[in-house]
Amino acid sequence: MNLVLLEPRDFITTNTIALSGERFKHLTAIKKVSKGSQFIAGKINDNIGSAIIDSIDSTHIYATVTLNKSPPKPLPLTVVIALPRPKMLKRILHICAEMGVKEIVFINSYKVEKSYWSSPALDSATIKKQLKLGLSQAIDTQIPRVTFYKTFKPFIEDVFPALACDRLKILGLPESPIPAPVGIDESSILILGPEGGFTDYENQRLIEAGCNGVTLGQRIYRLETALPVILGRLFN
Amino acid sequence: MNLVLLEPRDFITTNTIALSGERFKHLTAIKKVSKGSQFIAGKINDNIGSAIIDSIDSTHIYATVTLNKSPPKPLPLTVVIALPRPKMLKRILHICAEMGVKEIVFINSYKVEKSYWSSPALDSATIKKQLKLGLSQAIDTQIPRVTFYKTFKPFIEDVFPALACDRLKILGLPESPIPAPVGIDESSILILGPEGGFTDYENQRLIEAGCNGVTLGQRIYRLETALPVILGRLFN
Repeated sequence: MNLVLLEPRDFITTNTIALSGERFKHLTAIKKVSKGSQFIAGKINDNIGSAIIDSIDSTHIYATVTLNKSPPKPLPLTVVIALPRPKMLKRILHICAEMGVKEIVFINSYKVEKSYWSSPALDSATIKKQLKLGLSQAIDTQIPRVTFYKTFKPFIEDVFPALACDRLKILGLPESPIPAPVGIDESSILILGPEGGFTDYENQRLIEAGCNGVTLGQRIYRLETALPVILGRLFN
Repeated sequence: MNLVLLEPRDFITTNTIALSGERFKHLTAIKKVSKGSQFIAGKINDNIGSAIIDSIDSTHIYATVTLNKSPPKPLPLTVVIALPRPKMLKRILHICAEMGVKEIVFINSYKVEKSYWSSPALDSATIKKQLKLGLSQAIDTQIPRVTFYKTFKPFIEDVFPALACDRLKILGLPESPIPAPVGIDESSILILGPEGGFTDYENQRLIEAGCNGVTLGQRIYRLETALPVILGRLFN
């Protein structure tokens, strides 16, 4: 936890906070803070700065905060991903939050197992937890927006055109001869398929919609590896 | 499992194999193979090709293999990492194998918890399992070499000079003003610290030994995110 993420409800006054629960435990048990200790804090969707501990009782840390720095720049990117299995979904959310992706869209694909759509990993509280862990790791406060489209065809026909309009549209396509571009700096949309890839029909629809298929080379990566590799390559 | 990795003991003759256990289960239960089915196979530290199933009984798949393609090119890189916590160690081994790192060195650092060194995750069978999963994912057969140095000072003084000799030496250093290079194509050594970073003393010793501190930007990544990001940036 490189940043303690503050919710509006943590604030007692405009510049004092009370922390309990997991953050209390983390700060007292792992960071071993005491009165006068300082830590990095940020208010969700707001500024970053420092907190100085005023007092600690058995359940709460009371601190005074000075939040005067902007959070880091987001990536100019929407990521569209075929819904992964629940365990991987958590990692993907963490990676997106960590790397500064602010718009994440999960879609269906023929190869997405139906059961994934009813997993508790899709609950908004579970999603928010992963996103907040990613933000805390990367010292960011701006929480990504996550949306789900349970059917491919309406997504590609009705949602994608507006989402992708005027943006570079990059489709992960291992068999493409074109390597993923390096150091682009423009508003983009990145589409990544399920394990085993999109079907030919799905790839064809995405390419008709203006997507450029690109490869990361001969190796086939797991989604959780492919995503940081391609983001690190596109934006640097 | 994009490639079924074969051990010498799987071979009945030079071009026929018998598979049991996990690979048998994976092929029959998940891939739903039958007589005549074809799958991608590779012999550990040897060629890649295809296998055609001759017969299946209750415990074994018998197949004929044609292994006539070289495995993908390895990265010209040694990765040196401060030993991470056991769960992360597994992921790091998987990522290294997946991305083509063939030499992995785990070292100590002041901030590495002592208990990590006695974890069962360091058993050679556990390590090999993760490496093989990574190779299977990436359609590779060349198993990485993994070594451990339990003390920092002897490593930096006695081991590092020979290991790093004449190679580009890249040290992950979040506070460095120099961004990680893009698209290098030379023999390199990459050094990544523990959670919370190397100590000032350790960084100083690494820099004295010729390392160039580079950053991935303002954000602080978990090791399992930083590694694919920096590898995808260095080699593309």
